[in-house]
Parts: sequence; C-alpha cells; structure tokens
Amino acid sequence: METAKLVTLVVWITAVSPCVYSKQSEQMRKNGTRPNIIVMLMDDMGWGDLGVFGHPAKETPNLDKMASEGALMTDFYSGNPLCSPSRAAFLTGRLPIRNGFYSTNAHARNAYTPQKIVGGIPDSEILLPELLRKAGYKSKIIGKWHLGQQERYLPLNHGFDEFFGSTNCHFGPYNNKNTPNIPVFRNGEMIGRYYEEFEIHQKTGESNMTQLFIEEALKFIDEQHAAGNPFFLDWTPDATHTPLYASSGFLGNSQRGLYGDAVMELDSGVGRILEKLRDLKIDSNTFVFFMSDNGAATYAKEQGGSVGPFLCGKETTFEGGMREPSIAWWPGKIKPGIISRQLGSIMDLFTTAVELAGLSIPKDRIIDGSSLLPLLLNGEEDPNKAIFYYRGDEMMAVRQGLFKAHYWTWTNSYSEFKHGTNFCPGQNVTGVMTHDQTNHTDSPLLFNLGLDPGEKYPIKSSSAVYKEVMPSLEAVVKDHKNKLVAGEPQLNICDKAVENWAPPGCVKLNKCLPIPKSNPFNCTWVH
Amino acid sequence: METAKLVTLVVWITAVSPCVYSKQSEQMRKNGTRPNIIVMLMDDMGWGDLGVFGHPAKETPNLDKMASEGALMTDFYSGNPLCSPSRAAFLTGRLPIRNGFYSTNAHARNAYTPQKIVGGIPDSEILLPELLRKAGYKSKIIGKWHLGQQERYLPLNHGFDEFFGSTNCHFGPYNNKNTPNIPVFRNGEMIGRYYEEFEIHQKTGESNMTQLFIEEALKFIDEQHAAGNPFFLDWTPDATHTPLYASSGFLGNSQRGLYGDAVMELDSGVGRILEKLRDLKIDSNTFVFFMSDNGAATYAKEQGGSVGPFLCGKETTFEGGMREPSIAWWPGKIKPGIISRQLGSIMDLFTTAVELAGLSIPKDRIIDGSSLLPLLLNGEEDPNKAIFYYRGDEMMAVRQGLFKAHYWTWTNSYSEFKHGTNFCPGQNVTGVMTHDQTNHTDSPLLFNLGLDPGEKYPIKSSSAVYKEVMPSLEAVVKDHKNKLVAGEPQLNICDKAVENWAPPGCVKLNKCLPIPKSNPFNCTWVH
Repeated sequence: METAKLVTLVVWITAVSPCVYSKQSEQMRKNGTRPNIIVMLMDDMGWGDLGVFGHPAKETPNLDKMASEGALMTDFYSGNPLCSPSRAAFLTGRLPIRNGFYSTNAHARNAYTPQKIVGGIPDSEILLPELLRKAGYKSKIIGKWHLGQQERYLPLNHGFDEFFGSTNCHFGPYNNKNTPNIPVFRNGEMIGRYYEEFEIHQKTGESNMTQLFIEEALKFIDEQHAAGNPFFLDWTPDATHTPLYASSGFLGNSQRGLYGDAVMELDSGVGRILEKLRDLKIDSNTFVFFMSDNGAATYAKEQGGSVGPFLCGKETTFEGGMREPSIAWWPGKIKPGIISRQLGSIMDLFTTAVELAGLSIPKDRIIDGSSLLPLLLNGEEDPNKAIFYYRGDEMMAVRQGLFKAHYWTWTNSYSEFKHGTNFCPGQNVTGVMTHDQTNHTDSPLLFNLGLDPGEKYPIKSSSAVYKEVMPSLEAVVKDHKNKLVAGEPQLNICDKAVENWAPPGCVKLNKCLPIPKSNPFNCTWVH
Repeated sequence: METAKLVTLVVWITAVSPCVYSKQSEQMRKNGTRPNIIVMLMDDMGWGDLGVFGHPAKETPNLDKMASEGALMTDFYSGNPLCSPSRAAFLTGRLPIRNGFYSTNAHARNAYTPQKIVGGIPDSEILLPELLRKAGYKSKIIGKWHLGQQERYLPLNHGFDEFFGSTNCHFGPYNNKNTPNIPVFRNGEMIGRYYEEFEIHQKTGESNMTQLFIEEALKFIDEQHAAGNPFFLDWTPDATHTPLYASSGFLGNSQRGLYGDAVMELDSGVGRILEKLRDLKIDSNTFVFFMSDNGAATYAKEQGGSVGPFLCGKETTFEGGMREPSIAWWPGKIKPGIISRQLGSIMDLFTTAVELAGLSIPKDRIIDGSSLLPLLLNGEEDPNKAIFYYRGDEMMAVRQGLFKAHYWTWTNSYSEFKHGTNFCPGQNVTGVMTHDQTNHTDSPLLFNLGLDPGEKYPIKSSSAVYKEVMPSLEAVVKDHKNKLVAGEPQLNICDKAVENWAPPGCVKLNKCLPIPKSNPFNCTWVH
C-alpha cells in the first residue's frame, strides 16, 4: 500500500514539472510520511470566543486542551473580513484580490456568494485538494463551501473527492417561490434542503446539523484510515453563523445562550475528532489546524461571538474583523504548550498543507501563504511577514511586526448604521471608526498593536516612532502593490436565475423548482 | 515546635470565647496543619492582563502555569473599584461601607487614602493578621498598605509583625515643600522616601522596587520556614500603578511597553515565590491566592491594563472596574486545572484564611466574605452568593448568578470627562455609561453577564426574563440593606498637616520636614 502511494506521487512529479519537492518535504517523502491534514474552519467565530483566548465563560474545554497540547497562535488572521473571500484565500493560498473573490461594483466593498451570485471560484485557480490529489490524498469538505453556487463551482469540480454540506449559509427558511431554500449536497447532488429535509427549528434553534457534520468527519477519517489513504479534511461547520443552531443535547447548556450552545457543540466535535485520531493511533501523523473564517459577527449582538479586546468585528479591517482564534496540533511533532505571536494567515495553511504532502507550491503565480512548518517544528520566526487587510478591491491596512497602518478606514455607511447595523457595538474610537470611507493614504493611521491591541490610540504622525516605522511599512505596501496582478472580479454579477431552483440531484428527489428567466444585474454590496 | 504552637492556639481559644473552631478547621487542627497563606494582591491590574485571561501578548508564563496547577476564578471581584477600600475589604472581610472606608462628602464617590487623609483603618476593625496571630501565624505585608497614613494606622498597629513598603502609592516626585515625598517603611519606621533613597527614574521608569519586594518575600518565607512558624504573607507590589516602573532586567522586554514590563516582572516574582515554596517543600502546605485590588486603570490609556471584554475600568462599578484576574493555588489540595465560575470576592480571602488557620470568624459583626474551601477542596458551589458593587456610600449594582442589576450608573462627570479623564476609552454604551449620576432604582438596568459580559444590551424591563429575575435580585438587595449598619466614614477629612512630613523614623534619618499647621477640611472626591 505504501509503495503504491509513492508510485502515484512519483508519477505526478514526472508529469508536472513546475512542481518540485521542497527540502523539508523531500525529507518527508524519504521518510515515507504523508501526514493527514485537517483544517477546522469555523464560521463567524471570534478571537475572544475560546476559553484559552479569554472568554470569561470558559466553555471550550476541548479546544483549550487542544491548545495546551499544540501551538496557540495569538496573531493569526483570516484572508478577509468576510466568509467567501476568506475561504477562497485558504483553498488557493492567495489573497482574494488575486483569486477573484472580490467585487469592483463599488469601492472597498465586502462581497460574498449569496444564492444569486453568478461567479465563483475560477477554474484557473489551483485549489489545495487539486494539488493534494496528486500526492495521493483523498479530500472531503464537510459543512459550508461558499466558493460558488452554480454547478461548475461545486467542490467535486475543484479537487475534492467528497462533499457533505451546502454551498451557502443556512439562511432561510424561504418560500421556494421568491427564493428557493438552500440545498444540502452529498458530493455533486442535492440530497435535501435546509428547513425541509435538514431541519433548523426557527424558534428554538434546534438542529442536528453539527452532529451530522461531526459524524461525517469521523466516518471519513475511519474510511480513509481503513483504505490507507492520506487525507485532507476541510471541516467547516457553520452553527455559529446566524441563524444560530445547536442540537438538543447542547441547547441551553451554555451560559452564553444559543451562540454559546453552538460553540460548545463545535468544541465537543473538535474533541471527538481528535479522540478519533488518537483511537486510530494516527494522531502523530495528522496535522490539525483550528481557526475561523472571519471575525465575530458583532452586528448580531448577543447572538454573535466575542472579539475579545479588539476593535469592531466581521466586515471590518480592524483587528476584530480579521484576527482569529487559531490552534495548530500535531502530537509528537509540534511541542505541547507553544504560544506563538508570529504573524500568520489562513493562506499559510495552503502552503503548509502543500509542504506536508511533500509537494511544492505552483510556481506560475503568486502564492501569499508561507509554510508554518519552520515555525511549528523548529521555532523559526519570520519578522518580515506582513498581513494585508483588504475590503473588496482596496487594501485598507497593513501589518508588519507590532505595527499596523490603516490606509483607509470604514466601519459602514451612516445610513446602514442609523438603520441599526453596527459592526462595533459598544465601541467608539473617534477618527478611527469612520462612517464614511476615509482615505488616510497621505498619512496612514498607525497603531502599535502590542501597546494598543484595541486600536484606540493612533500614533502621532509627528512622533519619532511614526517617522521610524512608516517608511518600512510603506516599502512593504509599495512592493505588494507593484507585484499585484488583480484577478478577474468574480463577485460583480447577480442573477436570480442562478439561485438553487434546480440544483443537480433535484430530479431524483422530485424537488426541482421552476427557474426564472435570466436577468443579470450588478450585485449591490453595501458594506 | 509543633507542640508549642498548639499550646499557643489552645490558650487563645480559651481566652477568646466568641471564636470557636469551624468543622473544617477542627479537622485541620486535629491534623496539626496550619497552612501558610500568601495573598498576592496586584495594583490596578485588569482582568484581561494575564495570558490565561486572554491578553493577546501572553506574557505571563508563571501566572498561566499557576492557573493550570490550581484554580482559575473567572467571576471573582474586588471589594471596591478603588484601591484603599478594596484592600480594607480584604483585611477586614467586610464591605467598605461597613469598615468605614468610604466618604459621605458627596454621593457615590470613590475615596482612598492620599497623604492628606486624616482617617484610616479604625481600631474597632479586626484585621486578618490580628486573628492569625492568635493561631501562631507571623504576618508580613510587603508593598503598598493604603489603609491609612498616620502612625496609628500603620500595619504593625493592626496585626502585622513586619512591613516593608509604603503607606501609599509611589506618586511623585514632590518637592518636600508643598508636599513631602512618600516614605518607604521597614516595620514601624521610615527608612527612606520614594524618588530619594528608593529611586524611580521619571523618564525611563526604571526602579528596582519590585525586585526588593520579591527579595523581601523570599527572605520572609525562608525565615518563617526556618523558625517553624506558619505565616501570612500579604504581597502587594504596586509597579502596575501609574507612574509605572520596572527594573533594568525587564525594561523594554514586553510588547506592551512599560505596563507590560511591569507585568512581566511581577509575573517573574510570582514564579520565584512559588518556586521558593517548592524548594522548601512547603508548597503543599501553602495556600496562595493571586488577584488585583480593582480594575485596570483605563484612564491611563496605553499605560493602563486591560479590562478584556468588559465595560469601563477602575473607579466604575461596571465589570471592568471590579472583576479581577484571580487564581487559587495549593498543590495537592486544590486539583490542578480547575476553572470556577463561582461568584466570589476579595472578602472571601479573609474568611478562607481564617478557616485555614483553624479559627472562626468574629461573631460580633457582619463578615461579608465566605470561605472558598468548600468550593476549592470539594467543588461545592454557592448559587446564592451575591456581589455588591459600591461606589462610596451608594450600592450601585448587585449581581447574583449571571444577572447584574444596576441601581445607579455613573462613569464620571461631564466636566471631568471633557477635561480628558475617561474611564471607558474607546467604549460607548448609550444609557449605560452615564456622565450624570443616574438613578435606576425604580427600574434597574438588568444584564445577563453570561450572554452579555460587556454590559452592552440591557434586558428590557417589559421582558419575561426581567420580570422573573428582578424580584429575586430585589430581595437580595432588600435583605442586604435591612441588615446594613454603615460604619463611621473614615475618608471625609483631609489635612495637609497629616502628610508624611515627619513620619516615625525620620529623626534617625535626619529626614524630618517641618509640619504645617493643622487645617482640616472636607476632602474633595470628584469621581
């Protein structure tokens, strides 16, 4: 079995010349190891939601234990303050501005993949499972996909071997006339719809979806282990995205209400998955990374997560919008109890996974992620690593070391704010939280996130620190912009005809709905 | 030695009839154990300052380890949002409104013991070391006393056997004409003054005071161990109170600036003290409790601590003002890794210590503290425990379970706020943070701190939850007020003549300054 897998690998290397082994992966290939890879990607969970990251409820014992057994990353970022682009960043290793997961319909707008979106992940993008397949990996995504609604964008058309979950959030219920209910897929076909075959109780929030996602994960691990396949599991349950849900065994268990119930259920799922790895004695051959796709949905108030000590939440390029609760776990490889302040981002998981599989990253395009293995295995830090905070087509801010410069600030428009949409409830930092898109390019707002993690006290532009720090940040930005080739924007066009009226599989289920006439229009992105 | 100590104890029992053994302490007496007691009481450190409580810098490895070896208390409170009253609450086990550490000069004002204060801890109050002495304990306070400036209030006149530190904060430097520099005492006599013999560099913040406080602690432990005495160490270093300081070995080490340097130095001190207990093999016979005297001094901006996810800071009765980073540690007795959400307060340390010493609490007065031993040793929780949040003479708020009701709200006055004093920088919760003293007594502002730890979303008074919860909170308040006999207020009168012009010991040092003529006046408390 081991020999057969190596053959597959070698064949691929011969066939795909641009990809060559890296030094570290060469060693892994020699050792005959291709570790399994599990990414646990939460939905709208905030930096401050885990006990180990400081939530006072301390209701995440499994995640807290995972952190104590692995590496806790304090300064790790999503790829975007919104879900679809961040998930696309993960699976391509590239910023949304490169992989096309943005819109140019208006300046600096967050865009995602609602049902009516026409675009999705371009075929020209190389997704992680496409690469991993060439090293013999079996890949499954369980939960929310969010990289496109239409058939050609489905996971199995982009490298995944299996899929259980949905292309979108579990919004609804809809009436199947104006809007169809969101489908749940097994692999390439719909097997039912949310609020129909897959229930979420509107009043109580009761749903067994997270249990299904956990069971699917355990089954997949069992199966791949039995078959002797290295595997990549992209576990993306979405119970912490509104409308929140939890199963009967967890409803009412948390002191945080339904949001906390959902967190506790996910935490228990993390515990069960890690336990499965231990039971199968493959824990020391499985790299697991836990994080979230963007900051806490603070606009949901008590129904949203916690940004901890940070400013604002999801949709914003303040720390609350993009800093994520992140844990790496690999018993026997990553030393227990590591706390790392190394800057990193979800795109690093792409490059790390590629290296773990003994592959090299594509050489024909810019990959933004860098491998975490030198850090996690050998403690090698990279002080030059930079984080770019984008909102749609605009680079809003940049961070290197402890310093973050905002070139643009915007929470949301006055009109949205006045109508009750607040991304920063309970917070008010004059001149920093702005309700108009404010251009600071001539004199960026600079913060020392060590001294001031809450982005409350801009460093005076007349100060020595500002004069010392800004030139190096400017150089980072200049280099970034010089090399930037923006991808074709995928999130500009909407059309009700592409909604999930009649997804693949609907005939078998007798659940096809009449498709309205195509009428493409420019999507409106308000934030 | 052991016999001799038991004799002392028995004699005392015979002599002081109101104090009888509790059941638990009876057992301890039978076992011949009188555990040492160390309380590490920080100054202005916030709930969010420790790694284990969620600070992103994660620069407190020793405290984080202490928590993992002991019990982390998530919902533990100071006795007041300000230092002197909170420290008086600890050492008397009584709310400041009972022990006199408040003012009636104006409504709901925080008061403390500046140099010019005439009052101090009344002789009628029984302080913890006074009790412990009767069980053979040697007691020392190292650091800030803050229970009165005048000679009659000094620690050795209130039960302590030893004192190294100061009666007050290390404010200054002063000119010794308008105001004398703050004295540093050894036992009953001044041995120098801050900014003179005990240096704090005004520009760099360099000072070896914390090192002195650590060395004093280690020496005291060594000495008492050698002498075979059970001991009580009240370790109250004040480096995290502005003006901040740290020693040369720590300056510049933190990513949080001088505040973080001070935290790191204190953290190292905690590590060294616990290590000393292990080295002497008395760790399993020493109860250690770490906490802070009030919330983070948010008004100090980047020079202040972190309130984590909570509202406002020091001086306020919001969570940021009184919830404290709290850890109990007693290897072999308290199971490692306990996380407790039991409500508790600094006054519980009084009662716990009394029980640990095999004594009973005084029966002639109300003691607000309750013993933590049933919780820490046997996991017995008390769901009825209530926390009362006072500002001066006014009960501002009450908490029981997850619910907190504000009867009064006030951050600070508009005029103070407009002049730049902000206890809630970067925060804004309309109707909750009020700049006038707002009386909600007819319809208290109710919060579910489980759902809403940041006190952002008041529960509607028309809601079912409100109607269910408020009556029981009202009953708690009614009972509290019915039984309340307010002590004589100690913090009303000021007089420049009582400042530290000529403290005991000044003659020997030739450091006596001329005492101005007495001119008592009502102290002004603006917050």
